[in-house]
Amino acid sequence: AGLPVIFSGPCVIENEELCIDVAGKLKAICDKQGMHYVFKASLDKANRTSVGSFRSLGWEKGLEILSRVKNEIGVPIVTDVHETHQVEEASKVVDVIQIPAFLCRQTDLLLEAGKSGKAVKIKKGQFMAASDMKYAVDKVKSTGNEKVILTERGNSFGYHELVVDMRNLATMRDFCPVVFDVTHSVQRPGAQGGSSGGDRKMIPFLARAAAAAGVDGFFIETHPEPANALSDGPNMVPLHRMNDFLAMLMDFWTTNNNYRDFEI
Amino acid sequence: AGLPVIFSGPCVIENEELCIDVAGKLKAICDKQGMHYVFKASLDKANRTSVGSFRSLGWEKGLEILSRVKNEIGVPIVTDVHETHQVEEASKVVDVIQIPAFLCRQTDLLLEAGKSGKAVKIKKGQFMAASDMKYAVDKVKSTGNEKVILTERGNSFGYHELVVDMRNLATMRDFCPVVFDVTHSVQRPGAQGGSSGGDRKMIPFLARAAAAAGVDGFFIETHPEPANALSDGPNMVPLHRMNDFLAMLMDFWTTNNNYRDFEI
Amino acid sequence: AGLPVIFSGPCVIENEELCIDVAGKLKAICDKQGMHYVFKASLDKANRTSVGSFRSLGWEKGLEILSRVKNEIGVPIVTDVHETHQVEEASKVVDVIQIPAFLCRQTDLLLEAGKSGKAVKIKKGQFMAASDMKYAVDKVKSTGNEKVILTERGNSFGYHELVVDMRNLATMRDFCPVVFDVTHSVQRPGAQGGSSGGDRKMIPFLARAAAAAGVDGFFIETHPEPANALSDGPNMVPLHRMNDFLAMLMDFWTTNNNYRDFEI
Amino acid sequence: AGLPVIFSGPCVIENEELCIDVAGKLKAICDKQGMHYVFKASLDKANRTSVGSFRSLGWEKGLEILSRVKNEIGVPIVTDVHETHQVEEASKVVDVIQIPAFLCRQTDLLLEAGKSGKAVKIKKGQFMAASDMKYAVDKVKSTGNEKVILTERGNSFGYHELVVDMRNLATMRDFCPVVFDVTHSVQRPGAQGGSSGGDRKMIPFLARAAAAAGVDGFFIETHPEPANALSDGPNMVPLHRMNDFLAMLMDFWTTNNNYRDFEI
Repeated sequence: AGLPVIFSGPCVIENEELCIDVAGKLKAICDKQGMHYVFKASLDKANRTSVGSFRSLGWEKGLEILSRVKNEIGVPIVTDVHETHQVEEASKVVDVIQIPAFLCRQTDLLLEAGKSGKAVKIKKGQFMAASDMKYAVDKVKSTGNEKVILTERGNSFGYHELVVDMRNLATMRDFCPVVFDVTHSVQRPGAQGGSSGGDRKMIPFLARAAAAAGVDGFFIETHPEPANALSDGPNMVPLHRMNDFLAMLMDFWTTNNNYRDFEI
Repeated sequence: AGLPVIFSGPCVIENEELCIDVAGKLKAICDKQGMHYVFKASLDKANRTSVGSFRSLGWEKGLEILSRVKNEIGVPIVTDVHETHQVEEASKVVDVIQIPAFLCRQTDLLLEAGKSGKAVKIKKGQFMAASDMKYAVDKVKSTGNEKVILTERGNSFGYHELVVDMRNLATMRDFCPVVFDVTHSVQRPGAQGGSSGGDRKMIPFLARAAAAAGVDGFFIETHPEPANALSDGPNMVPLHRMNDFLAMLMDFWTTNNNYRDFEI
Repeated sequence: AGLPVIFSGPCVIENEELCIDVAGKLKAICDKQGMHYVFKASLDKANRTSVGSFRSLGWEKGLEILSRVKNEIGVPIVTDVHETHQVEEASKVVDVIQIPAFLCRQTDLLLEAGKSGKAVKIKKGQFMAASDMKYAVDKVKSTGNEKVILTERGNSFGYHELVVDMRNLATMRDFCPVVFDVTHSVQRPGAQGGSSGGDRKMIPFLARAAAAAGVDGFFIETHPEPANALSDGPNMVPLHRMNDFLAMLMDFWTTNNNYRDFEI
Repeated sequence: AGLPVIFSGPCVIENEELCIDVAGKLKAICDKQGMHYVFKASLDKANRTSVGSFRSLGWEKGLEILSRVKNEIGVPIVTDVHETHQVEEASKVVDVIQIPAFLCRQTDLLLEAGKSGKAVKIKKGQFMAASDMKYAVDKVKSTGNEKVILTERGNSFGYHELVVDMRNLATMRDFCPVVFDVTHSVQRPGAQGGSSGGDRKMIPFLARAAAAAGVDGFFIETHPEPANALSDGPNMVPLHRMNDFLAMLMDFWTTNNNYRDFEI
C-alpha cells in the first residue's frame, strides 16, 4: 500500500534458469525504484489461439519452479488458473491468484479463488464495461475474501484490435485497486494468423497515460530476448529496458500522487 | 443435413414439467415445419452477471431431467459445459456439447469436448473475429472428432451492446456449419445493472436477416412466460409464438436455398 | 411506393457514354424485375481519402450529362451535394438530393436540401445511432418537405472497418423509408493506404439479409469493369451481374412482404 | 513552440461580455502557467443534434465580437468553419481555422482553409484511424501551407459513446503537432435524446493521461456557469477551476518533456 506494485516476469514458465534470472533482476530494480514486486509467470497457456502453440512444462514442474523463485529470490508470486480444481494446487505456492480476462465472469472460478484466502487479481474481460466488474469483485468478496485487485487490459474494438479506455481506471478504482496491464493492452488478438500480434512501441505511451490517470500498479511481461519468447513476444518489454521503463513510470506515478483527489 | 436445425428450449432447467412441456411442443412444431429439433436447457448458469442470480437445480437433478426429456419426447439434447470435468458427466445424456462464448478459446475444454465423441457446438466469443474461429474448430478436430458446429451471437460493440455482423455467417460457413443464436444476439450485456437486458422485438429482423444471409440452423431460447423466466427473459421468444416464428424462418431459409452458390 | 427502389449507377460521372449505357441497361433490368429505378452518379467526389485521387469532370459538365441521362433514358436522378450553394444547381436536374454520411448532421445543408422541394436522401453517418437519425429527418421536415429517405451504410467498428447492424433498418423504418447501401456497407475505410478498400464478395450476404430484415430500396454502385472504375471499384457490383443480383433481392423482398407486420 | 498551447473559451459566442471576460481570465492564467493561449468560440453551431437547439448570434455579430476579444485582450483566435465560403470571412479575424471532425475529409474545405494562409487545426473524425489523418494534413499542405495541427477527440465506440485511444496521439505526432480535446472526448453523442450528453468528471483522468502520453496542447471548453451554457455544458470545465486544471496539466506535461524520445 502506498507504493505501486509491479507484476512482472516472462509470459510462461519456459525454464527455471530464466525465471530465477528475471525474478532476481526485477526484484533489484523494483527495490531501487521504491516499488513492490510480484513475480509473474503462467503455469500453462490454456487459451492460445492455435492448438499447436507452446503451452507449458506441466503444472507440477511449473509449481516447483515458482516455489524455487519464491524461496531463492524472496518475492511473492502470481499465476493464473483456468479451472476450479487448479486453485488449490496453485495456492500451495502462489500469493496472488489471477483470473484470466475471458474467465472474469465464471462464478465458480471466482468463488474458488476467493475461498483460497489468497489475493485474487481479476483481469477485466475484453467484452466488459468497467462498472460491471463490480459484480466480479462482489463474487470474490462473497467468500469473505476482501483481497481483490482488478486489471485493465483493453476492450474489443472491431476485429483484431483492442482499445484502452483510460476512464475505466477511474471507474474501477472507485470500488477496487486497479493494475494496468501494459503487455496485453497492446496485443492485436489473432492478428498474426494463428497467434496474436502486438505493438511494443506503443507500450510507453499507454503506460505513462495510465500512470497519470492513476493506477495502483502495473502488469508487465518481460523477457531477456522477446524475439525468442515462447509466447507474447511482440508485446513484451525487453528485460534490459525494465529499469528505465519503471523509473519513467515511477516519475508519472509520483506526479499523479499530488492529484489523487483532484476534481473539476 | 439438408434441413435447418433448431436448438431450442428454456434458458435454464427450471423444473421437469416445464422441460417436458416445452420439448414436446417444439418437437411437434419442428416436425410440422420440416426442421430438425434439438432440446436445449442449461444445467447451470455458471457465468451470471451477479452472484445472487438463480443458477440451477444442481447437475445431478438437471441431468436426470434432460434424460427424461430425451426418452419421453424422443429428441436429441444440447447443453453447455464450463469445465473439463463436466464433459464426461454431460456426455452420458446429451448429444451435443455446447462451449460457451467466453470459453471458446479454452483449449482443454475444446479438447475434452472433442474426445467425448459428441457433436461440439462452439459459440463464437464476443471478442472474436469470425475467421479466427477456425482455430477453435481445429482444436476440436485435432481429437479426431469432425462433428463441430459454430454459433454466431454477436460481437462487443462499445459497452453494454452487441452487434451482429452478418458477414460472419458466410465467413464461418466456409469451414464449418453455422447456427445463428437469435436470443443472445439481442442481449444487452450488463445493461440492467446486475443482469443483462435485451430487446426481444428485434429478434424477427435479425433472424430473418440471418436466414437470408445463410445459416444451417437457429438457436432460440423460449419460455411459456418469458416475463417469469429465471434467466434471459427479456430476449426470449414466447412459446406460443414459436410456430409462426419458425414458419417465417423456414420461408426465408427456403428462399435462400436457391442462392447458396450465388456470387457476384 | 409498394415496390423497391433501386438507386444505381457508377460511383462518379466518368464520361457521358458510360452513364447513358449504364442507365439504359439498369432501367431495362428494373422494369423487368418490377422495381423502380433512379440513376445515381456523383458530380464530384469531394471527400476522397487522398488529395491525388480522381474527383470529377466538373459540376457543369456533370450536370449536363445527368440531364442527358434523364431525358434520353427517362429516369429520375440522384446525386450528392456537399455545400449549401450546390443544392440549387443540382436541383435543376436531379430528383433526389443525397446528403453524404459525413454531412448528415450539417443543419444548413439539410435545410437547404429540404427547401429545394426535391426528395432528400440522407445517408446515416458512420458515427450515428439509428434512432438519432430522427433529428436529421426532422431538420429536413422543418422546411415543410416531407419527402425524406434514409440510407444505412454501416457504423464504424474499430479502425478501417464498418459493421452493418440490421436492427438499424427496423429502427429507422419506424419514422422514415430506408434504403440499404450495399456498396459502402462493404467498404473498408482507408484500408488500402490512401484509398478505401472493400470486399465485394460479401455484398450478396448483406444485401439478402437487408432485404429479409426489411427495406424500401437498395443503393448499388455498378460499373461495366469495376477493376477500372475511377472510385470504389473494390466494392461495386459488376454491371453484367446486376440482373441476377436484383432478381435475387426481389425474391427476398417479396418473401419479406408477407412479414412486414410480424411481431413476437 | 516549446510550450503547450491552450485553445479555450466558451463553446459558442453567447454574448460579447462573456467572451471578453473568459478570454481575459484565461489569458492571465496561461501567462502564469507558462502556456500559450488561443481564444476559442464557435461563430455558429452548424451541426447540433436537433434543429431546435441554439445556433448563434449570426456570423457578422460573431466576428465583431471575436475581433474585439482579439484586440482588447490581445490573444489569437480560433474558430471553426463548415463551408468553403466561410473561410475568407473568418480569416479576416481569426488566426487559426478549425475544421470540424465530421468534415475532416471534405477536400474543398481543407484546401480553402489551407489557401487562407492561416494555421489550420483539423479535428480527427470519430470514424477515422489516426494514421489516415495524414491524408487530411497532406490536403492542406498541398496548398503550400505548412501550419497544420491535428486534434484528437475520440472515436466512435458503439452507439452514443466515444473512446479515446491514447496511441493515436503518438501516431499523429509522427507527422503533425497534436492537440487533445478534453471537452469532446467525454461527450456522449446524442445520449440525452436530442442533444449530446457528457461526463465532466472524467476530464481530469483523460487530460492527465494525454499530457503523459504526450501532446502539444489542449482544447478545453469552459464557461463561468456550465449548467447555463447554451451548448456542451455537461462536458465543460468550469471557469473557476481552469487555473488548477491547467496547473495540473502543466505538471504532467513537464514530466513528459523528459521522456519525449523514450523507446523500449
